[in-house]
Amino acid sequence: MMKITAVIMAGGKGERFWPKSRMQYPKQFLSLTKDGETMIQKTVKRLLPMVAMEDIFVVTNVRYAPLVQAQLPDLPQQNILSEPCARNTAPCIGLAASVIRKTYGDAMMLVLPSDHLIRYEEMYIDTLRQAVAVAEKGENLVTIGITPTYPETGYGYIHFARDTDLGMPGVYRVERFVEKPDYEMAQSYLASHHYLWNSGMFVWKTSSILSNLETLMPDVYKGLMRIEAAIGTPAYDEVLTQEYEQLRSESIDFGVMEHAAHIYTLPGSFGWDDVGNWLAMERINPVNESGNYVEGDVITIDTQRTTICGGKRLIAAVGIENLIVVDTDDAILICSKDSTQKVKDVITNLKICNRDELV
Amino acid sequence: MMKITAVIMAGGKGERFWPKSRMQYPKQFLSLTKDGETMIQKTVKRLLPMVAMEDIFVVTNVRYAPLVQAQLPDLPQQNILSEPCARNTAPCIGLAASVIRKTYGDAMMLVLPSDHLIRYEEMYIDTLRQAVAVAEKGENLVTIGITPTYPETGYGYIHFARDTDLGMPGVYRVERFVEKPDYEMAQSYLASHHYLWNSGMFVWKTSSILSNLETLMPDVYKGLMRIEAAIGTPAYDEVLTQEYEQLRSESIDFGVMEHAAHIYTLPGSFGWDDVGNWLAMERINPVNESGNYVEGDVITIDTQRTTICGGKRLIAAVGIENLIVVDTDDAILICSKDSTQKVKDVITNLKICNRDELV
Repeated sequence: MMKITAVIMAGGKGERFWPKSRMQYPKQFLSLTKDGETMIQKTVKRLLPMVAMEDIFVVTNVRYAPLVQAQLPDLPQQNILSEPCARNTAPCIGLAASVIRKTYGDAMMLVLPSDHLIRYEEMYIDTLRQAVAVAEKGENLVTIGITPTYPETGYGYIHFARDTDLGMPGVYRVERFVEKPDYEMAQSYLASHHYLWNSGMFVWKTSSILSNLETLMPDVYKGLMRIEAAIGTPAYDEVLTQEYEQLRSESIDFGVMEHAAHIYTLPGSFGWDDVGNWLAMERINPVNESGNYVEGDVITIDTQRTTICGGKRLIAAVGIENLIVVDTDDAILICSKDSTQKVKDVITNLKICNRDELV
Repeated sequence: MMKITAVIMAGGKGERFWPKSRMQYPKQFLSLTKDGETMIQKTVKRLLPMVAMEDIFVVTNVRYAPLVQAQLPDLPQQNILSEPCARNTAPCIGLAASVIRKTYGDAMMLVLPSDHLIRYEEMYIDTLRQAVAVAEKGENLVTIGITPTYPETGYGYIHFARDTDLGMPGVYRVERFVEKPDYEMAQSYLASHHYLWNSGMFVWKTSSILSNLETLMPDVYKGLMRIEAAIGTPAYDEVLTQEYEQLRSESIDFGVMEHAAHIYTLPGSFGWDDVGNWLAMERINPVNESGNYVEGDVITIDTQRTTICGGKRLIAAVGIENLIVVDTDDAILICSKDSTQKVKDVITNLKICNRDELV
């Protein structure tokens, strides 16, 4: 059987969890559940039934490499692939594919975000195993879709068809990837029963993705090959820094998936949550009888449906509802649940005022 | 002309300005306006056109005496009258009256709260001068009423009659003092044009109030006389501590005003504000075009009609309205404007949990 590796993408900035997440400390390194484990620790831990620790690779921005090492002390240091700059997912995945090919020859790659939660981990592993079975054939590219439960407008969708030439029930052919829809469109997707949420999880062989990159993104592929040639030589860091900067910034969805042949999807129903913003806290943690999620030193009086993440100080909430309150050493956020998308405007404001210490 | 003295009552606990006000640092010692002056400093300053500093007396709990001294460095130290314990306004005023009688013989006393704001200070002084003219005659007791502008249910009211035997226009005879009414009753008071808000400001001679105390509260009067006998002797502190504790706790309104003869009232229209709770901030300070009052390091996005009193940290408010947010070093309050009366429940909660450092 082919070696199975995992590539965890951990370069995200996660501005939507400000003020807990910062430019220097993004969401994937935060613990947002009461068990104290961080998002990336959970991501690695849930893979271990299927992938050995030494076969897990983490691609991250060079500035986060020390955080990855600190939070994943059992991960071999050479498995942390540092990006000198952010170039979106196509270069990130291409770099990981070429490093894995250099290490193992052709191998299976599970490509996974570092900052999502999965409630049913055994079903998640089962789905990944099914995906591996599909990806083993030819140059198949597999994406894990999530069965939608409501007309979400914040995700991209996967339009699938039931007919495949694979003869594998529960595996579908991807017709196309669609961008975030408006609400009406999202409702029609949900009603059609032919759309899945795009979770950003992919399964393929290194040979399949690199061959597709060579055909569909030849400029990026050439740069990656110059980097691959330097792997294991003293010039690696210099070549990486120089070449990576030149790579075109592009998502794997737009650069490869929307144009490639042989794209399949498996609907995952394993309690996925993208933990997209502070609203997630009450979904991923238990709430009390007033609908509040509260952590830290907090007194609530006549308070309902409110999330309060305390810091070192007492927080007293009196007569409030539908709010999110987050306290840290140097900043406090008080946000209505309807406005979580605007937390990033605070960051924009801070950047304009050159207050980088708070960003 | 008779010596005019002022007695500023500064023993209040001011729980409704938690977390800025604390048991050890109540409202009268806070600066709630942008000019940086504290409430008691403003109270003294606005009296100076009428009363010399050495004729101003401050009655306060012994634990606040150092705060009075620190905030009013020009006040003679012997003018700070320390109460060993809280016994409401009747003993407080009686103590001040007997100290002033001992110092000056019979004198005029302006009895004033330490934690209210006055917008039109010249009109305030004019009203006090009118009151003095009334109080000079016989044993008249004068209370300053406030012309009501809406049916407030949080104040007591003064029911007055237009007929007096004084022949002084603008001075009215008090029919009776009434407790805080319900909303319907408050509306009828407002409509009747014969009710004023009870502001807790009084004007009388020491002889008038002491004579009334002797008649109406003989037990309290006897205790006060034992204290007066010790003034200027080495035994004063001991006698005060021993006798004051024994005094019946009673308000001057209930103990004297409701039963005395010759009670008059002057309607004051000098922009009085009792600064009763955090809602006052937007009344006593300028608000911006979104209706927000903001102080400290604050970013507001889509935020309206909200009061934010920042501390040392950044406060980011996103999509909120009708809230009060107050940050201090060890506690943060987030309160809906409809619930300011419940801030004291936080204090109750803290006391139950023996968290006295936060009370």
